[in-house]
Amino acid sequence: MNRKRRIYEGKAKVLFEGPEPGTLIQHFKDDATAFNAKKHDIIDGKGVLNNRISEFVFQHLNEIGVPTHFIRRLNMREQLIREVEIIPLEVVVRNVAAGSLSQRLGIEEGTQLPRSIIEFYYKNDQLNDPMVSEEHITAFGWATPQEIDDIMGLAIRVNDFLSGLFLGVGIRLVDFKIECGRLWEGEMMRIVVADEISPDSCRLWDIKSSDKLDKDRFRRDMGGLVEAYTEVARRLGILNDNEPVRGTGPKLVQ
Amino acid sequence: MNRKRRIYEGKAKVLFEGPEPGTLIQHFKDDATAFNAKKHDIIDGKGVLNNRISEFVFQHLNEIGVPTHFIRRLNMREQLIREVEIIPLEVVVRNVAAGSLSQRLGIEEGTQLPRSIIEFYYKNDQLNDPMVSEEHITAFGWATPQEIDDIMGLAIRVNDFLSGLFLGVGIRLVDFKIECGRLWEGEMMRIVVADEISPDSCRLWDIKSSDKLDKDRFRRDMGGLVEAYTEVARRLGILNDNEPVRGTGPKLVQ
Repeated sequence: MNRKRRIYEGKAKVLFEGPEPGTLIQHFKDDATAFNAKKHDIIDGKGVLNNRISEFVFQHLNEIGVPTHFIRRLNMREQLIREVEIIPLEVVVRNVAAGSLSQRLGIEEGTQLPRSIIEFYYKNDQLNDPMVSEEHITAFGWATPQEIDDIMGLAIRVNDFLSGLFLGVGIRLVDFKIECGRLWEGEMMRIVVADEISPDSCRLWDIKSSDKLDKDRFRRDMGGLVEAYTEVARRLGILNDNEPVRGTGPKLVQ
Repeated sequence: MNRKRRIYEGKAKVLFEGPEPGTLIQHFKDDATAFNAKKHDIIDGKGVLNNRISEFVFQHLNEIGVPTHFIRRLNMREQLIREVEIIPLEVVVRNVAAGSLSQRLGIEEGTQLPRSIIEFYYKNDQLNDPMVSEEHITAFGWATPQEIDDIMGLAIRVNDFLSGLFLGVGIRLVDFKIECGRLWEGEMMRIVVADEISPDSCRLWDIKSSDKLDKDRFRRDMGGLVEAYTEVARRLGILNDNEPVRGTGPKLVQ
């Protein structure tokens, strides 16, 4: 394990060289960060849960024909993925006002939006991931107009799938973030969903209680993060009721 | 003059009822504000200069077939305009990196952009005019996709005209802001350029010296604002070399 060449280390994940060309190993850490890493903590078990939840989502996206970088989960913290050329955008889809949209546009959190809204943020920690529009993206060559269309098409499909999935288990999909990448297959290139989809990258509210089951528990010092992520995993049928999240120190499931 | 009904008072202008239905009188004040009016000053003569410069620009836009709200100048501080339904967007066209674009995207001021970039800001003082994208504009109904297309078309034409105009008098058009409105003529509606175009709403740099000839002199406490605006007016042939900006207290032209 320690022999693998490290390709890239992010805030919550590490990418290692994969077993064959064109593949990588995506390793989920327990690090939680917010506000561009000004806030940081280690939350025992988070990486294991996100690996499992993201596996579940990406596997099903692949099955319904939404192309992703995901190949298969390898172990508790790692998954095998296709190597892609990451497009330097965070693609946010919002169904309900929350977070920065509420603050910037003065819309109370929890307000249903007139329709889903797609936002782009330029991935750049030094600049605090500024919001950008198609004009900036195309002028600076971060993606072509065709690629933006493809990305928006993928974002809408992911939103449709996730909205249904979470609705089915009593959770309101408030918003989420994806990243996309260029997957080269010979001369052919297509845009695929990359990175992860987990309670780290979604806002998930319990439909009945409005309890937050996502990273806002960390951002807003609410505690109970692992319990919330475990609840999401259990509702999705990923964890058996009595299955502990193994190898994470404290037993996470009562 | 004092009998006119006041329709709207903004930071630098007042709108009064016009002499006939569908018209308004746009009055240019000497108030200078920046940073959402956190900074404020009265600059003797600014309103007179902006009235003249904006008259000059709008008159020529009308002549080349770019529709505007402008009818004619009435006096030193006032112009007759058509009443339009203002679209609550500030439309910014940038040719060279400066101001918030430089800060947000980490691009040094003065860098030529790969191509002109159009940005939209939601006109809302309480929210500090947040940047928005077509997604927000259409989702919240501030303008339709067709109207956004029309606005972008107008913005590009205004940029083409102003770039040429200022180039011809040794000035680099760094960026500018316009506002647009819906002009109703019976059942027909078309989008026209409204508000003003002046050194208050443009960044204008002398091509040789890079001296700023715009409101950044006020924003950045550089002084010499009236002198700079006067220089712009004189280069455009609006002021004769010996013509003072009348009725504005101190004599502005040496």
